[in-house]
Amino acid sequence: MTVSAFENPLLSGLFGDAELADLLCAEAQVDRMIAVEAALARAQGRTGVIPVRAAQEISDALGLCSVAPADLTRGTASAGVPVPALVAALRGQIGGEAAHWLHWGATSQDIVDCATVLQLRDVLAVIEIRLSGVIDALQAASQQHAGQLMAARTRSQIATPITFGLRIARWAQPLIAIMGELPALRARLLRVQFGGASGANTAVAPHGAAISAALAEELGLADSPSWHGDRSAMIALSAWLGQIGAALGKLGRDLILMGRSEAGEALAGAGGGSSTMPQKANPVQAEAIVSLGGFLAAQQGAMVMAASPAEERDGALWGLEWLVLPNMLLATGAALRHAVDLAETLRARPENMAAMLDLGNGTVWAEALSFALMAHMPRAEAQACMKQAIAQARTTGTGLQQALAALPEVRRLSIDWAVWTSPETVAEPSRRMAQSVFADWRPDHEKT
Amino acid sequence: MTVSAFENPLLSGLFGDAELADLLCAEAQVDRMIAVEAALARAQGRTGVIPVRAAQEISDALGLCSVAPADLTRGTASAGVPVPALVAALRGQIGGEAAHWLHWGATSQDIVDCATVLQLRDVLAVIEIRLSGVIDALQAASQQHAGQLMAARTRSQIATPITFGLRIARWAQPLIAIMGELPALRARLLRVQFGGASGANTAVAPHGAAISAALAEELGLADSPSWHGDRSAMIALSAWLGQIGAALGKLGRDLILMGRSEAGEALAGAGGGSSTMPQKANPVQAEAIVSLGGFLAAQQGAMVMAASPAEERDGALWGLEWLVLPNMLLATGAALRHAVDLAETLRARPENMAAMLDLGNGTVWAEALSFALMAHMPRAEAQACMKQAIAQARTTGTGLQQALAALPEVRRLSIDWAVWTSPETVAEPSRRMAQSVFADWRPDHEKT
Amino acid sequence: MTVSAFENPLLSGLFGDAELADLLCAEAQVDRMIAVEAALARAQGRTGVIPVRAAQEISDALGLCSVAPADLTRGTASAGVPVPALVAALRGQIGGEAAHWLHWGATSQDIVDCATVLQLRDVLAVIEIRLSGVIDALQAASQQHAGQLMAARTRSQIATPITFGLRIARWAQPLIAIMGELPALRARLLRVQFGGASGANTAVAPHGAAISAALAEELGLADSPSWHGDRSAMIALSAWLGQIGAALGKLGRDLILMGRSEAGEALAGAGGGSSTMPQKANPVQAEAIVSLGGFLAAQQGAMVMAASPAEERDGALWGLEWLVLPNMLLATGAALRHAVDLAETLRARPENMAAMLDLGNGTVWAEALSFALMAHMPRAEAQACMKQAIAQARTTGTGLQQALAALPEVRRLSIDWAVWTSPETVAEPSRRMAQSVFADWRPDHEKT
Amino acid sequence: MTVSAFENPLLSGLFGDAELADLLCAEAQVDRMIAVEAALARAQGRTGVIPVRAAQEISDALGLCSVAPADLTRGTASAGVPVPALVAALRGQIGGEAAHWLHWGATSQDIVDCATVLQLRDVLAVIEIRLSGVIDALQAASQQHAGQLMAARTRSQIATPITFGLRIARWAQPLIAIMGELPALRARLLRVQFGGASGANTAVAPHGAAISAALAEELGLADSPSWHGDRSAMIALSAWLGQIGAALGKLGRDLILMGRSEAGEALAGAGGGSSTMPQKANPVQAEAIVSLGGFLAAQQGAMVMAASPAEERDGALWGLEWLVLPNMLLATGAALRHAVDLAETLRARPENMAAMLDLGNGTVWAEALSFALMAHMPRAEAQACMKQAIAQARTTGTGLQQALAALPEVRRLSIDWAVWTSPETVAEPSRRMAQSVFADWRPDHEKT
Repeated sequence: MTVSAFENPLLSGLFGDAELADLLCAEAQVDRMIAVEAALARAQGRTGVIPVRAAQEISDALGLCSVAPADLTRGTASAGVPVPALVAALRGQIGGEAAHWLHWGATSQDIVDCATVLQLRDVLAVIEIRLSGVIDALQAASQQHAGQLMAARTRSQIATPITFGLRIARWAQPLIAIMGELPALRARLLRVQFGGASGANTAVAPHGAAISAALAEELGLADSPSWHGDRSAMIALSAWLGQIGAALGKLGRDLILMGRSEAGEALAGAGGGSSTMPQKANPVQAEAIVSLGGFLAAQQGAMVMAASPAEERDGALWGLEWLVLPNMLLATGAALRHAVDLAETLRARPENMAAMLDLGNGTVWAEALSFALMAHMPRAEAQACMKQAIAQARTTGTGLQQALAALPEVRRLSIDWAVWTSPETVAEPSRRMAQSVFADWRPDHEKT
Repeated sequence: MTVSAFENPLLSGLFGDAELADLLCAEAQVDRMIAVEAALARAQGRTGVIPVRAAQEISDALGLCSVAPADLTRGTASAGVPVPALVAALRGQIGGEAAHWLHWGATSQDIVDCATVLQLRDVLAVIEIRLSGVIDALQAASQQHAGQLMAARTRSQIATPITFGLRIARWAQPLIAIMGELPALRARLLRVQFGGASGANTAVAPHGAAISAALAEELGLADSPSWHGDRSAMIALSAWLGQIGAALGKLGRDLILMGRSEAGEALAGAGGGSSTMPQKANPVQAEAIVSLGGFLAAQQGAMVMAASPAEERDGALWGLEWLVLPNMLLATGAALRHAVDLAETLRARPENMAAMLDLGNGTVWAEALSFALMAHMPRAEAQACMKQAIAQARTTGTGLQQALAALPEVRRLSIDWAVWTSPETVAEPSRRMAQSVFADWRPDHEKT
Repeated sequence: MTVSAFENPLLSGLFGDAELADLLCAEAQVDRMIAVEAALARAQGRTGVIPVRAAQEISDALGLCSVAPADLTRGTASAGVPVPALVAALRGQIGGEAAHWLHWGATSQDIVDCATVLQLRDVLAVIEIRLSGVIDALQAASQQHAGQLMAARTRSQIATPITFGLRIARWAQPLIAIMGELPALRARLLRVQFGGASGANTAVAPHGAAISAALAEELGLADSPSWHGDRSAMIALSAWLGQIGAALGKLGRDLILMGRSEAGEALAGAGGGSSTMPQKANPVQAEAIVSLGGFLAAQQGAMVMAASPAEERDGALWGLEWLVLPNMLLATGAALRHAVDLAETLRARPENMAAMLDLGNGTVWAEALSFALMAHMPRAEAQACMKQAIAQARTTGTGLQQALAALPEVRRLSIDWAVWTSPETVAEPSRRMAQSVFADWRPDHEKT
Repeated sequence: MTVSAFENPLLSGLFGDAELADLLCAEAQVDRMIAVEAALARAQGRTGVIPVRAAQEISDALGLCSVAPADLTRGTASAGVPVPALVAALRGQIGGEAAHWLHWGATSQDIVDCATVLQLRDVLAVIEIRLSGVIDALQAASQQHAGQLMAARTRSQIATPITFGLRIARWAQPLIAIMGELPALRARLLRVQFGGASGANTAVAPHGAAISAALAEELGLADSPSWHGDRSAMIALSAWLGQIGAALGKLGRDLILMGRSEAGEALAGAGGGSSTMPQKANPVQAEAIVSLGGFLAAQQGAMVMAASPAEERDGALWGLEWLVLPNMLLATGAALRHAVDLAETLRARPENMAAMLDLGNGTVWAEALSFALMAHMPRAEAQACMKQAIAQARTTGTGLQQALAALPEVRRLSIDWAVWTSPETVAEPSRRMAQSVFADWRPDHEKT
């Protein structure tokens, strides 16, 4: 049992993500906050709110500045936010008259929220690449296995045949929708925050709007009225991460089920061995994805709670966001890291898929055979025949189709059974459905 | 303590919503499922999958059909889904040969999910009207109070002056963003579901896609590959409801704080009396909104959990959706019902707002006065003066501005204090910020 | 999609519970509140706080009173709590001078919380009976199947043999611990609430403590300082329900896995049929349990949120409790209702259990065989032998034990293999472990 | 935005806890796992399962062993659990024949769960001390302020007078109940885990029970059947932490409300300053407590989810526990750390408390005055008089008591008003109620 499971050496291989951890560590936040202060100075220089020369000096000095997070521990604990201690440290490093103009008319939340947005921009870029990677790998696998029949399961029972290609497409389906939401999500999130003490920018009036626009430009963000009290975009982000967690969670759960000893229909990833049971191949990566998906589900409520901040600034709910959101991002990254691995190493075990289809003496074809019968007799009669045949198949071990064909009511009909149960009756519609799932995904030549 | 708080007579006035309850009751679901079966028959008639005449007979008969939910209790408990019992009942009512073609090649989930989407379409229409109503009322109130100064609070402390108009605009800010998401949300949700037993439409091959398209047209929905295993749109819906709950929760929390006995800055809604303490005016509607917002926050995790269904159909997680989503919709409706009331009856109490600004001997102007000083001296000196003046204001009860002006270092400067603390220094930037918040909201002539 | 899934006729067979619904309906709450008012009058008569005769008249009159919940809808919506409207209605029915003394010095929360506790007492009695029923049925089944070998699964892989009796005991294990917590939970919950307007009983001073004690006696509850602001016992209750949900959720999940088409190791409950796939037996009850378990998990956060009420009474968080707790109780009841069914109808399918043990050519015995080897050679050598034998078993289809015995290093040893892999090597320790699980459960003669 | 908010230098002052972090870091877990392996060897030596000499050698060697967590990263990622890599490393360090007997018949979960329990034992000891510290400090403060009147607030409105001493007692009330649960919680949690591969201890039969008992003794834990599949005690723990979070959350919320600029009734902790608004004293510690309380609420669902592990071992849900529980422990520790500070530095501001009582022209005494009237006239008449007097008090600014006394119906009565509104009418019952709250708390001489 260890804290910081996303980072500590014991668990980081399972639940960590080195690339995102770099973007979300304390140093990264401090660096981004310094970058925001520098950009603010330039923006205020450009808009004539502070002297151009001071702006230049600040920007130059901050380009060389670095502040160790540990130097801000005490100040952050005292103020509830790292900015006052950071600004004091930066003023010390800038020195001279220019220091007077640092952080001009800004409030701590302007700096922290802008820095967060900069971090989010980088994190989303990583997530996007991985999401695309998973979808691409699944699309290739879906096409590869487009003719591979397997037994669909509904409510945990073998239902009718589908193809492995279609099942794989189903894993990609939510991910494609999630990618489709990304531009709108970026538009909601990647916005500048500049509001001053209480969100009205009174201290820099009438230049508030101009500073905000210039700061947005400096940071490469969209302009926006200050949104410190409107955290709804954070809910949208959290739910988007939740969508990823749930979609990958399904992939993980399905792979665990397919890899069960009694099924063995597919393999993916590096299976974990057991020291005392050498025959085992534990689905460690799929399990980790499910753990991380559960984690992401459980955090959703906190992000909605955090989005009802009181009045002009709510110290308690803002802190709740800090406690929850970064871990959610990291968990998403870790789940995607495993998912890329699994999708790229996915292997079918056709012999076991065939064995599953053969379980139950061909009853997996019951629906198809019902439709064959109903082409010749009313539904009620067809159902009666089917019931009888299934009973016989169970008792005698005969195949369902044989049992059915032997029934007196059926024997006299000329049914070409092979037409109704040929692999192509399954593969064809499965292929079409899979194609329709990927229809919204980018064409091959656009892929990275 | 009562179950069904959203409907039972004891609590429905607080937490219920008659309009949405009508759309989400058992009768409504049964009616929608019958409508889906009728539309499916027509769609299959049009595409030549079932005889046109049977399609017409089914559609006509179902137009007159009605099934009492209580007649489906036992069948639903046995099958885990109401469709088999419903289809049996409908076949009985249709009779004849046409009954053979009812529900052709469909699976229960096709019917239930399509019915759910039809219910969602109606529910979203109601929510949209109410959301617009709240925003419109807040916009009007924001304009009305654009010049009304009040003390902003950050981290629960009086910070700087803003206007009541700006605070009201902040309540609308997330709601406008939420309305902006609605078209995309509808595009994700209002899609037809038709996949058959295992989602490949094998039983009706090669007509699956054609039936799906025709059914979509019949129901007025978008066409889509079947999405029974992709519940990510349900997460998006859940989070959208969560955004509403959080945004209204902030409104409710702020109104409770403004209505506290020691502040009394605003009133809204019908305050609840107390039998033993006749002086009280409990903010019952604002509290109900906060209760409902908390409820919506807590349900988020369930909807993410529910979106990792195993394999081709997961009876357990589908049921979890049923347990959670309808109550979320109703809670959202109830919160909006109260919010419309509150927004439309919002009243400022200017004398109390003024009293709050006067608390602390004018220290609410400390930021403004600091900037006045910094126009004449370096930051460090200005801060030292301010510190001294605040101490004096606290000890002697003098106003901060007076204490400041009396300092030797300050006295010699010619500062026109009135310029720095005039109401317009606050009202002007606050008005601009409020306008920028409403910039994305529809112009007056488009309003309902 | 329907609200009130726990009560409406469409879903109540799946998720409802008629017995608990009776205890938790609006009428039940009103009846309990009237009973509390009557008991309060008697308690105040006994302690000389109100005239004995008035107390008697109130108690007599309220014994005959009944108030329709619908008559309290408007009053509840206005006051945020049903008590003022109820007290007014009761005063009208009592009439005369006695009405003056009704609800003397009490506050709404005294009445609502005491009524809630009375409902909880009844609900807990029902839950206790069902919990005992599940444990008793599992104990009997565990003993019945104490010699039935099956393949244990760890991390979804076949591990080593255990007995079905032990697996069943594992389902009972948390339930026994949960029953063990019940006395302490009752002691925390079943306490009187009497605090008056702000919890100090000033209006009836110095008689507050005496009234509280007498009221506790009248209601058959423990005496307590008023706990209106301390909702920690509600968290304890919520978590206890969560424990039940989780424990039954495991039972449900395991039964779903055991009932999968490819395993078929056990059956329980009434399996749901499928209209289009007549061979299926969907585990509807087990799935419903898992749905309800997920619901109970998701509600936990709300009950913790609700337990930080502000100041002397918090209208918003109290309401959140009302929205969440009753549904949790009903969900627990429904899950237990299904669990009793499942436990009482549990059937092993020994032939399929045997087939699972045979999967993998006896590798299920790998651990046992390793220990056999290690009795004769160092661990490293034993592992090398085992690795070789497993490879051979996989390639050639030979049984693992045979492959092992044929290895040159092993052949020369005199290992009595049968001793190491006899059923009794599994059944014996499994039986002991199962017995130790049930050691804390009541002996047979105490069972109801 | 930073991951690992509980540990990283930027936020650890706010949300961290150095003492618990030491107990929950990766090194601590590795050390505990080594200690468990050593204890297991000794236990197996004592019970004759492995050679006594090997047991001694293992125990001696492991006493000197240390393994860097980073050396286990890869192995943990591969196996999904750190034990195989750890055991391999330890075997290397022990060397010789004794290494053969290390980890004999144990499974990874035996080691991890036992180590977790050892960590929990230490963590609970720290939490207990802090909880006691908070309660002791609150008890002292409650006694100190037993005569200090203040205005109670119900539903955010000034209600009737109580004492500050009583409000403080209410903060302690849930904490005392929580302490009362600790012995039972320890009894549930601090149990040995020894079950072997699938929980039946077949590999070491018939010595499983004896080893378990000896291991329990070695580790100072209670003996228990293996509980790897029964995580209900973890829910109990999680809810206990949730109770602490909620109770402290109430304390935090109340302190924030009491410290609002317009109330200023109490101060506690080190208030955070604001660089731009020097008059502010932000309640940083109280806010941090509320943040942490929200975090603890949100995690509850995950721990209930995690307690439905499939079959004999569930890799996915076990991992979810690892992701959630340690952070919950740390969050609880951090909240308690702040709470101790706040409780020990709590100061009343009597002049502001008095001002709050005077708000509303004495209407805070309305309930008391109602009872004064009802001693002389029927309730209905008394209410009419009160209504009239309140209206007059509001319009004219007269005190409520004076307005009441001036009414013709009242003037003729000889009411000694001072008796009904003397401070002692409030202080006396408040003191008694506070004493009853602390009645279950340990007497002074037992305090640490």
